[in-house]
Amino acid sequence: MSMAILLSMKPHLMEHWRHALLAVDPTLEIRMFPESGPPEEIEVAVCWTSHDMNELRRYPKLKLIVSMGAGVDHLLRPPGPPPGIPVARLVDTMLTTQMGEWVLLNVLRFHRQDLEYRAQQRDRVWEELEAPVTAARRVGILGLGELGSHAAKLIAGIGFPVGGWSRRPKTVPGVESFHGQDGLDALARRSDILVCLLPLTPETRGVIDARLLALLPRGAFVINGARGGHVVDADLLAALDQGHVAGAALDVFQPEPLPAEHAYWTHPRVVMTPHAASITIPESAAPQVVENIRRVREGRVPINLVDFAAGY
Amino acid sequence: MSMAILLSMKPHLMEHWRHALLAVDPTLEIRMFPESGPPEEIEVAVCWTSHDMNELRRYPKLKLIVSMGAGVDHLLRPPGPPPGIPVARLVDTMLTTQMGEWVLLNVLRFHRQDLEYRAQQRDRVWEELEAPVTAARRVGILGLGELGSHAAKLIAGIGFPVGGWSRRPKTVPGVESFHGQDGLDALARRSDILVCLLPLTPETRGVIDARLLALLPRGAFVINGARGGHVVDADLLAALDQGHVAGAALDVFQPEPLPAEHAYWTHPRVVMTPHAASITIPESAAPQVVENIRRVREGRVPINLVDFAAGY
Ligand SMILES: NC(=O)c1ccc[n+]([C@@H]2O[C@H](COP(=O)([O-])OP(=O)(O)OC[C@H]3O[C@@H](n4cnc5c(N)ncnc54)[C@H](OP(=O)(O)O)[C@@H]3O)[C@@H](O)[C@H]2O)c1
Ligand SMILES: NC(=O)c1ccc[n+]([C@@H]2O[C@H](COP(=O)([O-])OP(=O)(O)OC[C@H]3O[C@@H](n4cnc5c(N)ncnc54)[C@H](OP(=O)(O)O)[C@@H]3O)[C@@H](O)[C@H]2O)c1
Repeated sequence: MSMAILLSMKPHLMEHWRHALLAVDPTLEIRMFPESGPPEEIEVAVCWTSHDMNELRRYPKLKLIVSMGAGVDHLLRPPGPPPGIPVARLVDTMLTTQMGEWVLLNVLRFHRQDLEYRAQQRDRVWEELEAPVTAARRVGILGLGELGSHAAKLIAGIGFPVGGWSRRPKTVPGVESFHGQDGLDALARRSDILVCLLPLTPETRGVIDARLLALLPRGAFVINGARGGHVVDADLLAALDQGHVAGAALDVFQPEPLPAEHAYWTHPRVVMTPHAASITIPESAAPQVVENIRRVREGRVPINLVDFAAGY
Repeated sequence: MSMAILLSMKPHLMEHWRHALLAVDPTLEIRMFPESGPPEEIEVAVCWTSHDMNELRRYPKLKLIVSMGAGVDHLLRPPGPPPGIPVARLVDTMLTTQMGEWVLLNVLRFHRQDLEYRAQQRDRVWEELEAPVTAARRVGILGLGELGSHAAKLIAGIGFPVGGWSRRPKTVPGVESFHGQDGLDALARRSDILVCLLPLTPETRGVIDARLLALLPRGAFVINGARGGHVVDADLLAALDQGHVAGAALDVFQPEPLPAEHAYWTHPRVVMTPHAASITIPESAAPQVVENIRRVREGRVPINLVDFAAGY
């Protein structure tokens, strides 16, 4: 009996992943959903948001589920993975680098009054705005994990005062640490730019709501690169329309693709990207997946495992 | 006889400079052009582009001219400063920081396909573009002085391969050095993003012309934060319209303000700011001006002097 890896994602992505995995280990037997072959041959499943977790209960020898990205909310929500099967996610320099760039682009966009300057160009207005002062633009990052701590260091390195929020107190060089509910409120009060890089869990769902937005200094900006579920859309739109929030950069939505009639598409102070802040590059991610295949085959503990109790 | 400092710039700026200088040295006697008082009392002139250099020949005791910014092309062009009078320019962390941010914002804008994503949002198109690879996006910086070397280090720090062009070979950590005409061509051939931070001199005027643009890889981007005179506008517009250049970010123009009928204003692949990439903040710049006032009073050599032979 040959043991196999099951891929489940969009067809062109599966082809790409297959090549990348075989380049690392040509002996791998790879199946592309829905052609999974005999169920008892599947030992690792690499999948993304569309895969039904009930379907994975069909594979009696399944030892590990790997998320195709950094987030695992799509795997953990009900019905969740088959009982007893561990879940690993990706930790990848190219994911971290891309997200850092996307966040920095938007921090600089807002800091450098780019929404105003784009409008001025459209109206052929030549007018110098007040010089922005880096040391006076406080950035707050929700989530100081792989992506958040990298983004925090990058932004602090430019000269912005940066604070970060995590579940447990955390030491990131040059970044002030906040944690717990009190920490969240304290950080929001001093965030001229608020960035969300949290995992989506029952605790973090809807964290960016009217209450939190009201704590931000008037004219603050919101950047969400995590999950659409972190933001209460009606509350953010109200804050934007009242001018309390001066702009938002959003990469993630609820649902995705965002329906064409949603107010975000045409809002003059919303900058959207289509869940493209950080795109998994199979060549970069394949080695850690192969490493985990070897580990489960040898009975060793996989890397980048999800903590089910914490939810991420 | 009380010796005085002459300020010449826009009225609101003169007030701002007066306060900033007096905060550093309250004993200074400050005159605001055109109310310069007795000509023989003026020993230092701090001025910007609008001041007529012939007018400065009226002050017999003038010992130093200070540019209100980093550039001095406006002081050196004919008729030039009164013979024998040295010219100093500003070297200022806040100028350097602002320019670094403006360049980085535009590098990230182009690298992260932001022109495309803005167009997609306008058209309500949800489509993920190919993941941009930082290590494959080569950036070339013309000018490795105060502004250029800082921008180069910043961009290299993000992970972009960076090369820089200067008159003499130069060592900037993490940045490949190019110089001379051969160096310019070699750098252009490998620049997916070309950034201009040169001073405007007879040698550098029109450096970004059809010849240089043709050397860039197809689909390259141009960023000009230096002077409008560095770019041959007709050549850049032709390269943009042919699609050889995929986008340009321009802060400086010829003339300024850019006339409302100029093609740049409405070009879909041109991003404009109104000479606002790096705005002098008098509080930050005042100490070095006061230092230079003291130096000329004590007969010592001023700091940040312009080299007339080099033209910058
Ligand atoms: N838009 C995109 O293209 C894209 C791409 C990749 C990832 N993402 C999103 O980014 C998220 C973050 O990724 P990551 O790799 O940085 O995750 P991670 O390494 O697991 O880090 C999560 C961070 O969030 C903090 N956190 C979790 N629950 C919290 C709570 N209840 N209160 C306060 N802090 C809490 C954690 O605190 P501790 O440090 O105390 O554990 C940790 O600092 C992913 O889950 C995914 O949703 C989006
Ligand atoms: N848009 C704005 O808001 C704004 C604000 C401030 C300044 N600026 C512009 O930015 C310019 C640069 O400022 P900076 O302070 O960085 O100037 P800088 O310190 O004098 O540096 C000039 C650099 O250009 C190089 N260079 C000069 N002539 C050259 C030539 N013929 N060939 C090759 N390289 C040459 C120099 O080479 P070497 O190293 O060999 O001397 C040096 O590296 C200013 O002159 C000004 O025009 C614009």
